[in-house]
Amino acid sequence: MNKKSAYTVAVVGATGVVGTEMLSILEERKFPVGQLLPLASSRSAGGEVTFRGDAVKIKLLTKDSFQGVDIALFSAGGNVSKEYAPVAVKAGAVVIDNSSVWRMDPQVPLVVPEVNPHDIEKHQGIIANPNCSTIQMVVALKPLHDHATITRIVVSTYQSVSGTGKDAMDELAEQCRQLLSFGDIKPKVYPHQIAFNCLPHIDDFLPSGYTKEEMKMVNETRKIMGDESIGIAATTVRVPVFVCHGESINIETEKKLSVEEARTILSTAPGVQLHDDPSMGVYPLQIDAAGTDAVFVGRIREDDSIPKGLSLWVVADNLRKGAALNAVQIAEELVK
Amino acid sequence: MNKKSAYTVAVVGATGVVGTEMLSILEERKFPVGQLLPLASSRSAGGEVTFRGDAVKIKLLTKDSFQGVDIALFSAGGNVSKEYAPVAVKAGAVVIDNSSVWRMDPQVPLVVPEVNPHDIEKHQGIIANPNCSTIQMVVALKPLHDHATITRIVVSTYQSVSGTGKDAMDELAEQCRQLLSFGDIKPKVYPHQIAFNCLPHIDDFLPSGYTKEEMKMVNETRKIMGDESIGIAATTVRVPVFVCHGESINIETEKKLSVEEARTILSTAPGVQLHDDPSMGVYPLQIDAAGTDAVFVGRIREDDSIPKGLSLWVVADNLRKGAALNAVQIAEELVK
Repeated sequence: MNKKSAYTVAVVGATGVVGTEMLSILEERKFPVGQLLPLASSRSAGGEVTFRGDAVKIKLLTKDSFQGVDIALFSAGGNVSKEYAPVAVKAGAVVIDNSSVWRMDPQVPLVVPEVNPHDIEKHQGIIANPNCSTIQMVVALKPLHDHATITRIVVSTYQSVSGTGKDAMDELAEQCRQLLSFGDIKPKVYPHQIAFNCLPHIDDFLPSGYTKEEMKMVNETRKIMGDESIGIAATTVRVPVFVCHGESINIETEKKLSVEEARTILSTAPGVQLHDDPSMGVYPLQIDAAGTDAVFVGRIREDDSIPKGLSLWVVADNLRKGAALNAVQIAEELVK
Repeated sequence: MNKKSAYTVAVVGATGVVGTEMLSILEERKFPVGQLLPLASSRSAGGEVTFRGDAVKIKLLTKDSFQGVDIALFSAGGNVSKEYAPVAVKAGAVVIDNSSVWRMDPQVPLVVPEVNPHDIEKHQGIIANPNCSTIQMVVALKPLHDHATITRIVVSTYQSVSGTGKDAMDELAEQCRQLLSFGDIKPKVYPHQIAFNCLPHIDDFLPSGYTKEEMKMVNETRKIMGDESIGIAATTVRVPVFVCHGESINIETEKKLSVEEARTILSTAPGVQLHDDPSMGVYPLQIDAAGTDAVFVGRIREDDSIPKGLSLWVVADNLRKGAALNAVQIAEELVK
């Protein structure tokens, strides 16, 4: 991308939970935004968002929206990305897309800046932002993979409802209120009650019995780490938490890694914050990670059920590092 | 135990969450109780419990409590079990103990009636009831182990607060109420907020970095399955759910097991109920398992990260099958 002092940045889906985070992160990190162009469907167009203290009109997303746009951050669902990302590219924008539709396209780099920043160079207009649960896992695991070569990952997730969107957050709050006052509830966003319940079901089921979310963790991790040989078994579970995803991760490595070695590696790893002093009650927690940028890693311990194994617990803000922050970091790499 | 038409049954800790379940399960399953003797500390003694429609006085637990008692069900914590179980045995009772203090004693059988009922015969007065998270795992895995020999288990749990007791259930409800009305909370039972948060911390931490809860799953599973060679890596996590534990389990077997074979085996396995039709939204859920007796198994799928692996999701009521029901089932075996 040609170096400029300021860029015209479109945010598609500017009023969603991720879009809102994108705006505040662009502002927080002083991204060189010349003009901001918030785009949305007819439901939100005409309204306003606040950016650097100014009210900015939300425009209706159309095929003509991208003239003069340098960077378009998309977070309005797969269908919108499928239809409008090529339009934006044709108009000369670089698209950073938060949906899943372009991620596994061989022409499209799938990037976590701490892990594979150089893949950005290969872009042909679209750069994909990985799935939230994948991003935090690879930030934690890539440094260990570089030192010891991970051969297998078994991961179980504890994912918050904000990954589904604002309606899901409202549904969790409302179901809790109802159930705590002995009222009845009727699930709308999720197929079953989410308050005080865990759902081993995120995204659609595939014929194999896995969900699409689980297969995202498998396929995207391999693509980002650049290693198709890593075996990955994922179970993704929605838990009654508003923000941040937790992950219980077990890895098998080619070279033996001790707990101390893993801690040393992770203590200087980009994007990682070590929260690992269990005897003092210090381990990654969703309530602590909310609103922050780091991927928190703790509960690192040797797994003696295999000769070379480690277990760890990883938490990050799924709206920030898992989505909006990672997208803005890609934009930062792009304009470097 | 000598066959009788009715037995004098003491319930130590009769007013706790598990003790209360024990009374209702003894009644539900028509256990041949001649006389019921609810025992408790001075905090509850003098009060009453209802059993088969009658009010029964709660007596103070003392060293003289067990004269004439045939079976003593203990669920009043480790210290009480340590002190009073030997007293009860000396007085002629058989103790079925729900605490962890006797479980790994080589003299004490650790029993899940669906898995190792014959171990009961070896008892010398005390029979231990395993940890809640262990019980539901072995009920689901033993039939698969018998067919295909499990060599390794990786498990991550989603455990409800009722495993901690009534105070923890109150704390979850109260924290939710406060947070939903933007109030402040102050954790008392747990070291951190439990509402809308997951705690990767159950029971105390050991120098290895594992918790005692995690090591219970390792050691108790091996003892109950009668196979010290099974490798087990456990991560135990408290989730903001009132009742029932969920478990994401990944197994490696010596003999290849297909999903269909596993389903066939589990469809007739004692204590197991298969809830495995994900395309219809059918998988084990904590809200469905609450108040029921079965161990629910679903989301069975082949793990292609290893040549012979399966993943499954297992849910059971931790107060019933995970504690009170299993104890009463042991008593039933004892008087058979």
